[in-house]
Amino acid sequence: MTNKYDVLGIGNAIVDILTHVDDDFLNNQKLDKGGMMLVSAAEAAKVYESLGQCIECSGGSAANTIAGLASMGSETSFIGKVNEDQLGRVFQHDIRALGANFDTAVLNDGPPTAHCLVLVTPDAERTMSTYLGACVELTENDIDHATVANSNITYLEGYLWDPDEAKNAFRKAIKIAHEEGNKVALSLSDSFCVDRHHQEFVELVKNDVDILFANEDEIKKLYETGDVNDAARQLQEDCDIGAITCGAKGCIVTNIDEIGHVQGRKVGHLVDTTGAGDLFAAGFLHALSNGRSIGECGALGNLVASEVVTHMGARPDIDLKKFIAEFG
Amino acid sequence: MTNKYDVLGIGNAIVDILTHVDDDFLNNQKLDKGGMMLVSAAEAAKVYESLGQCIECSGGSAANTIAGLASMGSETSFIGKVNEDQLGRVFQHDIRALGANFDTAVLNDGPPTAHCLVLVTPDAERTMSTYLGACVELTENDIDHATVANSNITYLEGYLWDPDEAKNAFRKAIKIAHEEGNKVALSLSDSFCVDRHHQEFVELVKNDVDILFANEDEIKKLYETGDVNDAARQLQEDCDIGAITCGAKGCIVTNIDEIGHVQGRKVGHLVDTTGAGDLFAAGFLHALSNGRSIGECGALGNLVASEVVTHMGARPDIDLKKFIAEFG
Repeated sequence: MTNKYDVLGIGNAIVDILTHVDDDFLNNQKLDKGGMMLVSAAEAAKVYESLGQCIECSGGSAANTIAGLASMGSETSFIGKVNEDQLGRVFQHDIRALGANFDTAVLNDGPPTAHCLVLVTPDAERTMSTYLGACVELTENDIDHATVANSNITYLEGYLWDPDEAKNAFRKAIKIAHEEGNKVALSLSDSFCVDRHHQEFVELVKNDVDILFANEDEIKKLYETGDVNDAARQLQEDCDIGAITCGAKGCIVTNIDEIGHVQGRKVGHLVDTTGAGDLFAAGFLHALSNGRSIGECGALGNLVASEVVTHMGARPDIDLKKFIAEFG
Repeated sequence: MTNKYDVLGIGNAIVDILTHVDDDFLNNQKLDKGGMMLVSAAEAAKVYESLGQCIECSGGSAANTIAGLASMGSETSFIGKVNEDQLGRVFQHDIRALGANFDTAVLNDGPPTAHCLVLVTPDAERTMSTYLGACVELTENDIDHATVANSNITYLEGYLWDPDEAKNAFRKAIKIAHEEGNKVALSLSDSFCVDRHHQEFVELVKNDVDILFANEDEIKKLYETGDVNDAARQLQEDCDIGAITCGAKGCIVTNIDEIGHVQGRKVGHLVDTTGAGDLFAAGFLHALSNGRSIGECGALGNLVASEVVTHMGARPDIDLKKFIAEFG
């Protein structure tokens, strides 16, 4: 494949606002630990007011994956909607700074750039409240035909199924990609997201997705089974390539010929698991673009994920090329 | 002293934008390593464009000190100027979240909230380009008489001498504090700042400052001497209390009766020295408010500074009360 981009990501363009909380805080605020909840601007403001000091860092699931890929040297592009406000400029800067192409038309009025309150508990688990803001204005018109046609893989996040208009954008991108003989990858995003859109996701995975990323909870929810190995066998039937992340244990990888397990990499000091799945996908897709076996793809996914969990924030803190040269 | 606030901080209200760079980058951009340069919005935008991915974190020298004091449990207030934009809300949130009072009138139009590009080199040194934005709109009118009168110590940053109007605010605060029998503390901020305002700073320190904070470079510049011990003796004559930070070596502390050296604390992994001086001042002033000796004040300053240099950003990443309980 000789397209301009190895991977095009389409997703919600979000700036994360991260802080540490304890489990009592989550209980008091009635937040489901480990999940991502959609909230209104007013609800987000209420939670924010009760938080301690925060740091801000560009986020968004597919955007994190694209950032990781760009940092490793893949050719990438991103489609997502920001407002022309300060957080929008932060998001734009950060993804372009890594070398990704990002030229989705910016909102001049309407809702502000999306933000996600990322609450990190002492066990390094993250719980998220997202105000989608400008993301709900992403439409079919933002899907540039040439960009999708020129991308070997179009990578979509399940979260895009939440804003109504984005769903149409999502479908348009799939159609173009397949018409052009390119691949479609999907991340199921989170198990609550799978709950919200269960039947649609089942059909999407069966009919439209070539490469699927999920964690254990998500894949078990999708296939309504308690057994991850059973889920992996179903995934193998539905998609050309699949990867199921299993936290510290590593991952299960599938293709038409085989199902394999790849051991996780020991992490020195676990701080914040935000972005672990996104960076796993980055490592996996980077190796895939370089013609590696699915076992090697899983190993690079594990390696890259092991960096992002050692600090606050879902974007790599270091040059991943150097990191891979040292540890890969 | 039984005032409402232990310490009132007055300073530039800034959100930091932090990233890693190498020394070549500083040379190419003609940035003085270790310094703080004032830049226009256009110049800041030009540097920003050439930077890699960043994180955002509330900053501002005196604001960092107040954040540290609040985190330790001191009663604090802050005066500084932000716009009602997204970065302004971030700054407001973060300082209030730690328990500091902050009710300076917010700008409704005019320049945006200030930001500082903080470029961290591999040796953990930071070099800063600051766009003062809304900070230039801080005036005498923002100095609330009752707040200054009700603060045992009014803490000022030397950087406030840069925006013209803020200088008048600065003088007004000093006048009120002394009329009410309260103390005035000053941080010299950085050696370039001492260069810019040398004669005024000499007179200020001699006539108006009760407690002075400086690092070796700054104090040697102030007293035009190459010998830090000589500078310490001059400082002892000018101010009731003085503290000179000497990086990893610790600090020199002075009062009317004595000059002492306090050993530095070993730091595990030095990442980013941004805020080291600010957090030293926080530890020092917290101990001073609790009636400790200047040696103990210096030791707590060293301890608190040793936390902030282990991560990106000039605000403590953890609850300093717990940190002191563990290591203090």
